[in-house]
Amino acid sequence: MSQLLQDVVGELQKLPGIGRRTALRLAMHLLRMECDSVDGMTRAIDRFRHDIKHCVRCNNLSDTELCPICQSEERDRTTICVVEQVADLLSIENTHQYRGLYHVLGGVISPMQGIAPSDLKIDLLCDRIAEGEVKEVILAISTSVEGETTLFYLMSRLRQFPAVKVTTIARGIGFGDELEYVDELTITHALMNRRALE
Amino acid sequence: MSQLLQDVVGELQKLPGIGRRTALRLAMHLLRMECDSVDGMTRAIDRFRHDIKHCVRCNNLSDTELCPICQSEERDRTTICVVEQVADLLSIENTHQYRGLYHVLGGVISPMQGIAPSDLKIDLLCDRIAEGEVKEVILAISTSVEGETTLFYLMSRLRQFPAVKVTTIARGIGFGDELEYVDELTITHALMNRRALE
Repeated sequence: MSQLLQDVVGELQKLPGIGRRTALRLAMHLLRMECDSVDGMTRAIDRFRHDIKHCVRCNNLSDTELCPICQSEERDRTTICVVEQVADLLSIENTHQYRGLYHVLGGVISPMQGIAPSDLKIDLLCDRIAEGEVKEVILAISTSVEGETTLFYLMSRLRQFPAVKVTTIARGIGFGDELEYVDELTITHALMNRRALE
Repeated sequence: MSQLLQDVVGELQKLPGIGRRTALRLAMHLLRMECDSVDGMTRAIDRFRHDIKHCVRCNNLSDTELCPICQSEERDRTTICVVEQVADLLSIENTHQYRGLYHVLGGVISPMQGIAPSDLKIDLLCDRIAEGEVKEVILAISTSVEGETTLFYLMSRLRQFPAVKVTTIARGIGFGDELEYVDELTITHALMNRRALE
C-alpha cells in the first residue's frame, strides 16, 4: 500500500467514529475532490485549531477575546444560561428563543475521568455573578450521573448569591417521543411536573 | 457562532457521510487534540492529495511511477486481477492469498453517471495483455448492474486474446451469511455452481 495513502488513513483514524474502512473511503473521496477544495479544508482545520480562542467572560468559542454574544448590546445581561459545552450553546441558539447570555463550563464533574470542579469554569461564573448585574442563572446541564453531580455542586456554590434566582430547564417528554418508549425516570419527572391546562 | 468554527464545520461537511452535527463533533474533537497532531493530519491530507500518483501500468495508487506490486519480483506476472477501484485491490491484498498483479479500472461503465468504457483503463489493460506474458485475467468486478455491464464489455474486449484464460471470482454464500437472509439471485448462483464434496 502506498505510504501516502497509509499515512492519510492512519491520520484520519485519529478522528472519533472513523475506523480504517471509513478512513479509506474518505481518502478516496479526497482524491475525487479538487486540490483547491482539499486545500481549503485543511487550511480551515489548521486556522481553527491554531487561532480559535475561548471568550474570557463566558468560555464560548470565539474568534476574538470577547465572543459576539457577550459583546452584543441586544442580549439580556441579567440572565446567564450555564451549559456543559459549546455544542449545547449552539443547540440553544438555534432555537432563537433565548436572548440572555451563556456560560460554558467546559465539561461536567467526573471523578472517573478525573474532572474536578476546579477543571470547570465555575469560579469564572461566580465572578460574573458577583458583579451584581445577573438576576437569574438557568442550569441547562444534561441528566447524566455526572450532569446531576455538577448540578448539585453548582447549586451549592450559587447559594452564596441569595438574590439570584437559580432555575433548571424542564425535564419531560420530548416532542415526537412516544410515551411507550420513554424511560421511567423521565415519565416520573413529567408526571410530577404536570401543568394545569388553561 | 465563531467564523473559524463555522468555516471548519462547512469544510468538513464536504466529506461523504458527514452532516452538520458530525462536523461539529469532529471540530470539538480537533480542539481536544494537540496542535501538532492536527498539523500532522492536515499535512498528511495535503501531501496525499498533491503527491499521490497512479501506477502507469496498473492504475493502482502509488508514491512512485510504478507501484510496489508492479515493481515486485515476487509477484506472478502471468496473472492479472481486474478490479473497479483501489479499495477492492486493498481488500484482496488483505487476504494475503493472491500473488499475481492487478489492474484498477477506476470505476464501472455507467451511462447514468456518464461513465463510458473509454473513461476506464481498459485500453491500458489490453496493452498489458498484448505484451504476451499474461496467461490469466481474473475479473473481480462487483455484481451491480453496472458491474455486470462492465464484465460483459470486458469479456468482449478480451476475446481478441484467445490464448488468455478469462475467469471471474466465485459468486456464492458468504462465510457467516445465513441462508435465510441471502437474496434469491445469490442462492440461485450458489446452487448452480455447487461443488462435489471430496
